[in-house]
Amino acid sequence: MSHSSYLAHRIQALQPSAIRELLKHSKMPGVISLAGGIPSSELFDTEGLGIATQKVVAENFNDAFQYGLTEGNQQLRQQLVGLCQERGISTTDDRLLITSGSQQALDLLMRALVNPGDVFVVERPTYLATLQILSLNEAQVKSVGSDEHGMIVDELEALLKTTRIKGVYIVPTFGNPSGATLSASRREKLIKLAEEHHFVIVEDDPYGAISFTEAREKTLLQVATERGSQENVVYTSTFSKILAPGLRVGWIVLPEWMKQKVAIIKQATDLHANSFTQSLVSAYLTLERLNPQIELIREAYKKKCLSLSKHLQQELGEHITFNQPQGGMFLWAAFRYQFDTTRWLQQTLEKGVVYVPGEFFFSDNADKKTLRFSYATATEEQLYDAVQRLKAAL
Amino acid sequence: MSHSSYLAHRIQALQPSAIRELLKHSKMPGVISLAGGIPSSELFDTEGLGIATQKVVAENFNDAFQYGLTEGNQQLRQQLVGLCQERGISTTDDRLLITSGSQQALDLLMRALVNPGDVFVVERPTYLATLQILSLNEAQVKSVGSDEHGMIVDELEALLKTTRIKGVYIVPTFGNPSGATLSASRREKLIKLAEEHHFVIVEDDPYGAISFTEAREKTLLQVATERGSQENVVYTSTFSKILAPGLRVGWIVLPEWMKQKVAIIKQATDLHANSFTQSLVSAYLTLERLNPQIELIREAYKKKCLSLSKHLQQELGEHITFNQPQGGMFLWAAFRYQFDTTRWLQQTLEKGVVYVPGEFFFSDNADKKTLRFSYATATEEQLYDAVQRLKAAL
Repeated sequence: MSHSSYLAHRIQALQPSAIRELLKHSKMPGVISLAGGIPSSELFDTEGLGIATQKVVAENFNDAFQYGLTEGNQQLRQQLVGLCQERGISTTDDRLLITSGSQQALDLLMRALVNPGDVFVVERPTYLATLQILSLNEAQVKSVGSDEHGMIVDELEALLKTTRIKGVYIVPTFGNPSGATLSASRREKLIKLAEEHHFVIVEDDPYGAISFTEAREKTLLQVATERGSQENVVYTSTFSKILAPGLRVGWIVLPEWMKQKVAIIKQATDLHANSFTQSLVSAYLTLERLNPQIELIREAYKKKCLSLSKHLQQELGEHITFNQPQGGMFLWAAFRYQFDTTRWLQQTLEKGVVYVPGEFFFSDNADKKTLRFSYATATEEQLYDAVQRLKAAL
Repeated sequence: MSHSSYLAHRIQALQPSAIRELLKHSKMPGVISLAGGIPSSELFDTEGLGIATQKVVAENFNDAFQYGLTEGNQQLRQQLVGLCQERGISTTDDRLLITSGSQQALDLLMRALVNPGDVFVVERPTYLATLQILSLNEAQVKSVGSDEHGMIVDELEALLKTTRIKGVYIVPTFGNPSGATLSASRREKLIKLAEEHHFVIVEDDPYGAISFTEAREKTLLQVATERGSQENVVYTSTFSKILAPGLRVGWIVLPEWMKQKVAIIKQATDLHANSFTQSLVSAYLTLERLNPQIELIREAYKKKCLSLSKHLQQELGEHITFNQPQGGMFLWAAFRYQFDTTRWLQQTLEKGVVYVPGEFFFSDNADKKTLRFSYATATEEQLYDAVQRLKAAL
């Protein structure tokens, strides 16, 4: 029986076995994982989530267990209008669609936007699962460089001189894997380019709320709105990093012209997001515990990030270089000399520590001397040990 | 901004607006809906689901709120091996993948199987959401007829003489919309054809457990296994109809050669099924309440089905004809003379009753005099009133 060919070809680029092996290893006893973008379970609001669960069973039983609307739980969508407002985003509930985490948001959006062969632009480096999704949808992926101020928008402008593009995928704030945040002037310019060249920006914002300072860049959707149009930006975010990923509740703010398309695809894909956990998130939001919970996460991750940075600087500063993250979950580093971080992983694994090699985050021109550390899951003691182990593996 | 073309073309065939309108109407106050395939909320095991929820929060907090494995909760997969065994299906946990309801199972499977232009065969009539998914994946859909014994497999055999097909989609037991069950001899023949012609059968079995008698046809996967191979059948089922649809927990039993492909697509699509409700279902299964719950549903739906059948026969027997369902949620009827049930819907709506016009369940050669009634949601009194209203609309 031959069922190879097409999909096999499409997924070849994904190197999934390598990533899946890595995830397996990261769960081996004694191994400290700086690999996955996994929120710290210790920070979960156990009490609040417990109360919210009780509320669902006591007050919203049928909503939680019955089929729901494709676009999502109506009460939750109204609450999300308020949450978006806190983030400077002005929208209405009919523009919101609730998804099974922001991973599904990206899948739905790319299915709606990408025709085979369409050019989609990503940052170099970018979120690796987006590369998988673009590949599944047969997009032609082009990349533009990034630095400590995020995507180098001038490179995008140069590309647009020769290439018609369908869209740009970007994590503008506390990027994954780069940790970088797009500067205000680049945000302005990116929106202007989207208006001029009629492309769509997919603004993926899972980490924006996890800032280590009081400084805030406007979301791209806010910048676009202030310039007079929301037609070129799709905004997506999630409760995975600020509440709990197992809930699988994310959302999309859609431009008017995409609403119906995305809803139809959502319906065909899985009818609607999980009724129970939508009700659970809605009940949680009524408790007014989300903002204190985000404060807790910000403080904890900031402390962990500073620890990891300090240890890396002290122990490995002559070998690697990195920018100090201002928020989010990731520290992106690079060796100061030619180095293959994918190969090195075998040695660090023997010493009992794993990370994600940088090359997986590139669609092309992979920089093999880069690597991504997540500081979210490990304890401070583990972060210290991890760096010692990395040093011993050199 | 022009974003039309490709997807717009792909979704044109879906007629979603008509269906969405219909669903809206079916929720209007005073309207009795015989439209959606929605389990009766009154039958939910409120107590059992409440206990299971408590157990999750008390005993499995981290599993429920943290990221999980792409293939699904390991304990639940092991429990599903036992549940499959009760259905005559012999499998192992590594062949099981948990999905967001069986709707997502169908989407994942078609994404894994269908290359643009591949021929996929469905019954005439068939589940309309499958037509949507096949359309999104650019399959070439061919249909074969069905009667009171399910798909007419001889028609498929004739088609195979001229056409190379990738797969067959079938709801062999208590079909949607037909209510029909594929006979034993046709099951045997279908499997034999799949072996000879190297195609895949997607066996969609959401209703098999909801039998009104003690008679049981073997699943196609069991028939195939007894013939010596599981390579040609993919089996999918769900907790939506036997426990609660809002949980969005379904599963696939995959042949060895599809396992990795489907897992990769699942991961790109939404990482994994909902952690919380997977834990909830797993906790529920430990309570040993599922089989009594299924008994309750079987009894209740049987009673409702008999009521609806009786009223239809008495009040509309000279106008419509139908086969008596032996299980499931649907009664498929046809006018005895030329009739347009899509147009008629406007009149029945005015009288306060809705159903799904039959034409939506056909990929081609739609039989406009057919219609689907669901008896699951309405009360017995409402079923009586509904038929009176249908009569008044004639």
